[in-house]
Amino acid sequence: MKQKVVAVFALGLLMTAGCTNYVKQPEKTNAAQVTPAGDPLSSWNSGDIKDAIIKYVQTVTDSADKSYIPVQDRIATFDNDGTLWAEQPVYFQFFYALDKVREMAGQHPEWKTTEPFKSALMNDMGGIMRQGEKGVLAIVAATHAGMTTSQFDSSVAQWIDTAVHPIKKMHYNAMVYQPMLELIKYLQTNQFKVFIVSGGGIDFMRAWAENVYGIPKDQIVGSSIKSKYEYNNGQPEIIKLAELDFIDDHEGKPVGIQKFIGRKPVFACGNSDGDLQMLQWAASNKYSNLELYIHHTDADREWAYDRKSAIGKLDAGLDEAQKKNWLVADMKRDWKTMFPEGK
Amino acid sequence: MKQKVVAVFALGLLMTAGCTNYVKQPEKTNAAQVTPAGDPLSSWNSGDIKDAIIKYVQTVTDSADKSYIPVQDRIATFDNDGTLWAEQPVYFQFFYALDKVREMAGQHPEWKTTEPFKSALMNDMGGIMRQGEKGVLAIVAATHAGMTTSQFDSSVAQWIDTAVHPIKKMHYNAMVYQPMLELIKYLQTNQFKVFIVSGGGIDFMRAWAENVYGIPKDQIVGSSIKSKYEYNNGQPEIIKLAELDFIDDHEGKPVGIQKFIGRKPVFACGNSDGDLQMLQWAASNKYSNLELYIHHTDADREWAYDRKSAIGKLDAGLDEAQKKNWLVADMKRDWKTMFPEGK
Repeated sequence: MKQKVVAVFALGLLMTAGCTNYVKQPEKTNAAQVTPAGDPLSSWNSGDIKDAIIKYVQTVTDSADKSYIPVQDRIATFDNDGTLWAEQPVYFQFFYALDKVREMAGQHPEWKTTEPFKSALMNDMGGIMRQGEKGVLAIVAATHAGMTTSQFDSSVAQWIDTAVHPIKKMHYNAMVYQPMLELIKYLQTNQFKVFIVSGGGIDFMRAWAENVYGIPKDQIVGSSIKSKYEYNNGQPEIIKLAELDFIDDHEGKPVGIQKFIGRKPVFACGNSDGDLQMLQWAASNKYSNLELYIHHTDADREWAYDRKSAIGKLDAGLDEAQKKNWLVADMKRDWKTMFPEGK
Repeated sequence: MKQKVVAVFALGLLMTAGCTNYVKQPEKTNAAQVTPAGDPLSSWNSGDIKDAIIKYVQTVTDSADKSYIPVQDRIATFDNDGTLWAEQPVYFQFFYALDKVREMAGQHPEWKTTEPFKSALMNDMGGIMRQGEKGVLAIVAATHAGMTTSQFDSSVAQWIDTAVHPIKKMHYNAMVYQPMLELIKYLQTNQFKVFIVSGGGIDFMRAWAENVYGIPKDQIVGSSIKSKYEYNNGQPEIIKLAELDFIDDHEGKPVGIQKFIGRKPVFACGNSDGDLQMLQWAASNKYSNLELYIHHTDADREWAYDRKSAIGKLDAGLDEAQKKNWLVADMKRDWKTMFPEGK
């Protein structure tokens, strides 16, 4: 388990190596959901994928149809990184960690000469990588632990409102996919209970995702570190500890679904091999089910990557999708709009 | 952590020692929720407690009131054992474990001569106790692990439909408290999102509690053992492992609330010292909040116990409730009806 999360962070670091530093900008974005009148999926181009989604939802919500699904069993699970928002050149949570290292450096003069912080502060990704697992965990410990859940929540919320993506120069919460906002809303309107099931940090997502996606905090499942309760003389606090608790990725996704939701999904959507087990799990549902992969094919508006990408690798999943006739949305072909602001 | 769950089970065993054996009976009960017209809490006697609950709900849902709570922050958390259903003479989940040992004994002829099963099969609770932690964990492992989540769910669901309480001679799911069913419904009607946060097993509760209480499976939080995903040649399964994962009791309750819900409750209700930290956590909410203890005072209709009880001990919690002016419902005084069938 530990190896896996380290691998995720390490890949993030590796991919970040080529990035230039970036500058925070004052622009303010608002990724509000839009429900167009008439067409609930108006940012999706007409075609097989859009048709199949709409036909599925219409069928399973029709009480006269033999594929009807009772409301309590309409569970939909979505991956986050690369499925609901972008994930290149590294998972955005890793940008948060690096920003925090820079922000905290003033209180840690020793970081100037101590690895992995020395490398992080110099934007020397190769230097961080050379510290190995220990170095990556030190950054996680410094930026995600040793504080209350409330402090972490405020820190992430403040970051998401101000930080800017180094390449796109957009706020991170503006880099969510408009077609996916519409899909979430469409499912909710049809009484699906929609969950995020992500390899990303559960507390990191809960700080902003509820407002951005319209998915309640308790319906957000992710990876976690351990925490402990402290009475604190009548001002109780929960402290985040520098110890891994649960990795919600690959085989961890069905396990996380069982743990947090207690029901098998009928609708599962992801974009990488890390989502394959979640889609398999949904595909084994006794109810009519739909599995959807988002395929990153649009190098102009977003990024194009799949079988060989270090971040969001989609290889075994693409093969299984073809074999099992799962839906594969081609972002370039199937999406009229990419981001909420029409970019 | 391990010590704590063992202690819970051990206490259960200790208290069971005085029980006579019991016989399954064919009677069928149905703990359906009833919402009386007019009075949403009609099984509660008039008085301070009922008045305070109604006044609280009316106030915090009144958008013109300064104590108004936005809908997404209306989180209510309820303990289960001793709060929503009875828990004497031992936690009902332990009765399930003992019943399973008897049921499985045919496939385990060695149990006749192997502890702790030998003692369990002879109803010799002292004998089980003498096996210590190892013996208790062996019973948990045999009855709660080594099977798929689906098999465990079916087993518990079948048990709850047929098993009978050794003293009350009622089905266990008929031993839920009618006033609490009404309270849950009343809060839900007022757009509170109601969760169970119990020291009991999460998978054990999810097998029956959704229908009995009207609380969705994903809003049920409890203690857990670990599990793993297996692809199983395209018929994926999640297997329950004989390894403790999370103990949702005492300090574990606020931790479990943060992990599963991600929000501090405004309404918290329990009946024992195991719930004290959950009530403290709710009491620290910035929003107007209500803490409620259920005090077992009715030896005729149910059981009377508090400061010295091995099961559901309410001692430090009672002191803190008095000090902090938390509500303490006196079951004998405040509850017109105990169980849904009017018993």
